[in-house]
Amino acid sequence: MKAAVLVEPNEFEIRQRPDPSPGPDDVLVAVRDVGICGSDVHYYEHGRIGDYVVEDPLVLGHESAGEVVDVGENVEGLAPGDRVALEPGVPCRRCAHCKRGDYHLCEDVEFMATPPHDGAFAEYVSWPADFAYELPENVSTTEGALCEPLSVGIHACRRGNVGTGDTVLVAGAGPIGLLTMEAAFAAGATDVLVTDVVPEKLDFAEERGADLTIDVSETDAATAVAKYTDGAGADVVVEASGAEPSIRSTIDAVRRGGTVVLVGLADEAEVPFDVLDVIDNELDVHGSFRYKNTYDAAIGLLEDDAVDVDGIVEFESSLDDIDDAFRNAVDPAVVKGMITVSE
Amino acid sequence: MKAAVLVEPNEFEIRQRPDPSPGPDDVLVAVRDVGICGSDVHYYEHGRIGDYVVEDPLVLGHESAGEVVDVGENVEGLAPGDRVALEPGVPCRRCAHCKRGDYHLCEDVEFMATPPHDGAFAEYVSWPADFAYELPENVSTTEGALCEPLSVGIHACRRGNVGTGDTVLVAGAGPIGLLTMEAAFAAGATDVLVTDVVPEKLDFAEERGADLTIDVSETDAATAVAKYTDGAGADVVVEASGAEPSIRSTIDAVRRGGTVVLVGLADEAEVPFDVLDVIDNELDVHGSFRYKNTYDAAIGLLEDDAVDVDGIVEFESSLDDIDDAFRNAVDPAVVKGMITVSE
Amino acid sequence: MKAAVLVEPNEFEIRQRPDPSPGPDDVLVAVRDVGICGSDVHYYEHGRIGDYVVEDPLVLGHESAGEVVDVGENVEGLAPGDRVALEPGVPCRRCAHCKRGDYHLCEDVEFMATPPHDGAFAEYVSWPADFAYELPENVSTTEGALCEPLSVGIHACRRGNVGTGDTVLVAGAGPIGLLTMEAAFAAGATDVLVTDVVPEKLDFAEERGADLTIDVSETDAATAVAKYTDGAGADVVVEASGAEPSIRSTIDAVRRGGTVVLVGLADEAEVPFDVLDVIDNELDVHGSFRYKNTYDAAIGLLEDDAVDVDGIVEFESSLDDIDDAFRNAVDPAVVKGMITVSE
Amino acid sequence: MKAAVLVEPNEFEIRQRPDPSPGPDDVLVAVRDVGICGSDVHYYEHGRIGDYVVEDPLVLGHESAGEVVDVGENVEGLAPGDRVALEPGVPCRRCAHCKRGDYHLCEDVEFMATPPHDGAFAEYVSWPADFAYELPENVSTTEGALCEPLSVGIHACRRGNVGTGDTVLVAGAGPIGLLTMEAAFAAGATDVLVTDVVPEKLDFAEERGADLTIDVSETDAATAVAKYTDGAGADVVVEASGAEPSIRSTIDAVRRGGTVVLVGLADEAEVPFDVLDVIDNELDVHGSFRYKNTYDAAIGLLEDDAVDVDGIVEFESSLDDIDDAFRNAVDPAVVKGMITVSE
Repeated sequence: MKAAVLVEPNEFEIRQRPDPSPGPDDVLVAVRDVGICGSDVHYYEHGRIGDYVVEDPLVLGHESAGEVVDVGENVEGLAPGDRVALEPGVPCRRCAHCKRGDYHLCEDVEFMATPPHDGAFAEYVSWPADFAYELPENVSTTEGALCEPLSVGIHACRRGNVGTGDTVLVAGAGPIGLLTMEAAFAAGATDVLVTDVVPEKLDFAEERGADLTIDVSETDAATAVAKYTDGAGADVVVEASGAEPSIRSTIDAVRRGGTVVLVGLADEAEVPFDVLDVIDNELDVHGSFRYKNTYDAAIGLLEDDAVDVDGIVEFESSLDDIDDAFRNAVDPAVVKGMITVSE
Repeated sequence: MKAAVLVEPNEFEIRQRPDPSPGPDDVLVAVRDVGICGSDVHYYEHGRIGDYVVEDPLVLGHESAGEVVDVGENVEGLAPGDRVALEPGVPCRRCAHCKRGDYHLCEDVEFMATPPHDGAFAEYVSWPADFAYELPENVSTTEGALCEPLSVGIHACRRGNVGTGDTVLVAGAGPIGLLTMEAAFAAGATDVLVTDVVPEKLDFAEERGADLTIDVSETDAATAVAKYTDGAGADVVVEASGAEPSIRSTIDAVRRGGTVVLVGLADEAEVPFDVLDVIDNELDVHGSFRYKNTYDAAIGLLEDDAVDVDGIVEFESSLDDIDDAFRNAVDPAVVKGMITVSE
Repeated sequence: MKAAVLVEPNEFEIRQRPDPSPGPDDVLVAVRDVGICGSDVHYYEHGRIGDYVVEDPLVLGHESAGEVVDVGENVEGLAPGDRVALEPGVPCRRCAHCKRGDYHLCEDVEFMATPPHDGAFAEYVSWPADFAYELPENVSTTEGALCEPLSVGIHACRRGNVGTGDTVLVAGAGPIGLLTMEAAFAAGATDVLVTDVVPEKLDFAEERGADLTIDVSETDAATAVAKYTDGAGADVVVEASGAEPSIRSTIDAVRRGGTVVLVGLADEAEVPFDVLDVIDNELDVHGSFRYKNTYDAAIGLLEDDAVDVDGIVEFESSLDDIDDAFRNAVDPAVVKGMITVSE
Repeated sequence: MKAAVLVEPNEFEIRQRPDPSPGPDDVLVAVRDVGICGSDVHYYEHGRIGDYVVEDPLVLGHESAGEVVDVGENVEGLAPGDRVALEPGVPCRRCAHCKRGDYHLCEDVEFMATPPHDGAFAEYVSWPADFAYELPENVSTTEGALCEPLSVGIHACRRGNVGTGDTVLVAGAGPIGLLTMEAAFAAGATDVLVTDVVPEKLDFAEERGADLTIDVSETDAATAVAKYTDGAGADVVVEASGAEPSIRSTIDAVRRGGTVVLVGLADEAEVPFDVLDVIDNELDVHGSFRYKNTYDAAIGLLEDDAVDVDGIVEFESSLDDIDDAFRNAVDPAVVKGMITVSE
């Protein structure tokens, strides 16, 4: 089969790789659509993310969907011809995290496109059937691939316990921020406020239903939130930008007794944080890492048109043109690119 | 002022009562719209509900909204001219329930239209300002009055922990059932199934978005749910009919580890319940009593058109015609009547 | 190896069976102590429990501890010579329940001594290493075997959300009731009240620290609880007797807004339940099925002497005398018997 | 009556003040014992805490217990002669926080000894009866006064969701740290590790049952915790020292998916915090502010000897000698002083 392999920073090669063969609990999937995530772009540019270093040629891509072409002998409920979205992290199933239901925190998770595990920019992927989720007729494989970033948003909202009637501030209007907004509305939020520093992104958020957009290059987020909420603050703040000033401002924008969810990765590990406010206002500050048990929900919301992912994908490209696609995706103004491996 | 007083079963009298004067923490409200609830009808027909007996002439009505005409000296945030929905139960604010935030379980709650406390079928009501919720421009006082039954649905969904991606069975397609369906979708449910024995009610539920309707006079609910969910069962079942067979069937319709919420009042206190299933399937069976902290959410959802209450009200009538209105409301096929006290 | 096999109701045979050999993720355990559970006795007497029928000769026993004598190639953290308690249910690790952390609700769990899965009344058991928990020096294998019923109590308290300062009523003073009392105190309960109909059991509960014991053959539980709690009722009621009158009375004994946990299996599936009270008092009624993620806690509490299991075991016997031991255990006055397979 | 009034920093005057007279919902309490809290000492030394400035002469003291000598006309359940502990913060009972059960977050709370509200270093206090908790016979008024700092510990453990089997790191072995350790054991923690920089305090913690003490002037807390927990980290870390290095280290000492509770007030508002770790390890960081609904639990634990407060009080003094007592309390090595107003 054909696979796009990152051989060194800024260079993909299309190589032939042996076709994978599914184990007894696996499905073999002909990949159709794979989103380009910020982490893919980061590996592409830098060859590493923190401690994860690309030492051997690596297949990137972890936002994927395709069509089942073969199934292992133990597999029930999926058959060739079914279209599926693939959840990219497979845990050990045996550790304390897995047993608690926090399988996404498993230390031994094998996550697509995280060295040394190959991802989905390839014609075929063999994957455990229980991490392959059937797509209903009216959900495309492009939408299936978007279940991954949508899952990040759903999980962030769950970590924030977003519920009916809540006012939610989403900091950052990139793909994760926008999909968090969608997930927040789907979870019952009645007011979603969005910040960014790029006017076009704020406009896009507003078109999609944001109740208020705040350009934090001009306006202080906390002040704007206070005004909107008659001084109360947001019930939940989801920080999806990773920008240090934004992280710091979450504490001021959330209401007393409210919840801050941190999902956007900062460049610097250490950010000065107003711990006195955390205590005096008895805040909950929750990290949100990837997701768990979200794919069925994501697919259900897409099937119902209860979330809107139209327009999240700004361009589509073929596997053969992946180098161009990544050069395009490096532009921070681009919301998201998608590689169409097959149709 | 004019008030409709239930003087004996099946007989209202329009009487003059002294205008109420607001205390320092109260607002005086010119009542506009008041819904007719099943409990009002029950008092009208029988003069009692269980241990609550109408001994003195009583003003019924607890689903109300109107316009503020005066405010007590301590009141902030509300002023004459504001339109408000009134939450009908005012707790003692001092007991263990109140301190836990379960003010709706306060034993000393004063609840409109529950003997000996008068309700809202009257020209004016004086009410604690913190239980009067301002309505935004695009929410009518009719919708404001419907915040009460909508609150029952929101609270039931909270008691069931309904969240993103859930499959919810709502048993009973009366006003509470329908508004529970609305609240479930608003809270992220992707599949809502509705049962009833009246085809017209099921049709109405389907028009409003039910994914499946089940006529339980013909089809077993658990069987239909099992088929719809590939054998898994519903994540949450909300029992809103009060019918004994329906209550019993909740246990079979819910998934292992799922939650049953009981909100519909049965005629008989004791219903045989499959406790072995409750244990073997580790179910949560939660009673849901009225509501707490729901009015802001209800109003926010109405403001956003995130819930649909159109068509819940089948007829409107004036205070002077209240006797006719109640004779009409006795018909179980009628979804809900509304008394327009003033415009 | 030698194993005690139930060949037909009321008849064990000591048979030679092939020694099990551990798979790559398993440990081979030389069994030392195995408790006799009520379910073992039920299989012994009746050859079945509900739908579970002993069709082929079966090894009973699921409350076990022993010494590791061999480990599979993937096993880390355990080595020959380690003493371990065995958690008897091994789930599929792949289904929705497993992924939620509710592995005890997995439909495909393989549970010791539940047909067709053999249990631990045998010289050796091979078991997945992640369900074998090392015992510290000061915890005996007898106590290790008691981690199983103690886990039932810990899980029941977790299902009831028992916390600091709670008043808990435990209905039934058999092994599960007594260990639930221990678990409740360990979880912070300040008042534990215990019911039974056998004075000796109540005396035993009182010796072990029950704040009040109630002989429900003479005294109404709800009345006694109301008196003890100045009318409030218990925060949590754990029903561990399975007796129908006791199950019904839980609803009256619990406080408004409180939690009833059902753990004792009733003889009849259907028990009349006061659903109006469940609604009016907004109760939580939670089934409690086995346990999950409890063994580390159980062992930690035993290591700290934070729970007291002395006296729970009334007699010990050898594997060769298992028939006598079971005839003894049939007596409902006996709290618990233990088979010492090896020392 | 006699009251100790802080007239300026470092100077108390014993003044005559009018006897308070209880309102209809109040009890009049003859004060017996009042603890000296760090915040009292801070007002004594500096005349302010942050934005709270002592502008008029102020009565300090908010850890108090005494004897009821009179009750208002609405008061039930308390009578002259009853000994009570006083919860020092009385909320507005009307705001959104109060209605959610978060009355401790009420913006309008009147808290003893916080300007402009007088505290309990006085012969009499009139106080709402629902914030006065009767002490059982075997709980002294000294212990009653200690219900306040014990409540801080109980609340911190609740904020950390400390439960059966947990490993808890408590940073700081002052009164709050020690009482948090007591509360953690009472809530089911099996392992409590304590840090400090004062060897005597660590010795005291060890005598009282700490499983491990760590002198963080010599040893890195995270390293010691990792060693103790085989690399896993603590389930819960409660930061009770307020020292910046300690606050920063919590993130490294807690396990993946674990909870950090911040309760100790830092000198500097902003502390650099490893937000990448918060996200990657999906931590919960929870501020803990005072307490709510803890007094009954605190009293129940004291009644049962389930917590040990002996030795927390290092010296007792009389109201007349309060100036000496505070000069003594300024010494950071002193655990806690207590003023005996009457016997």
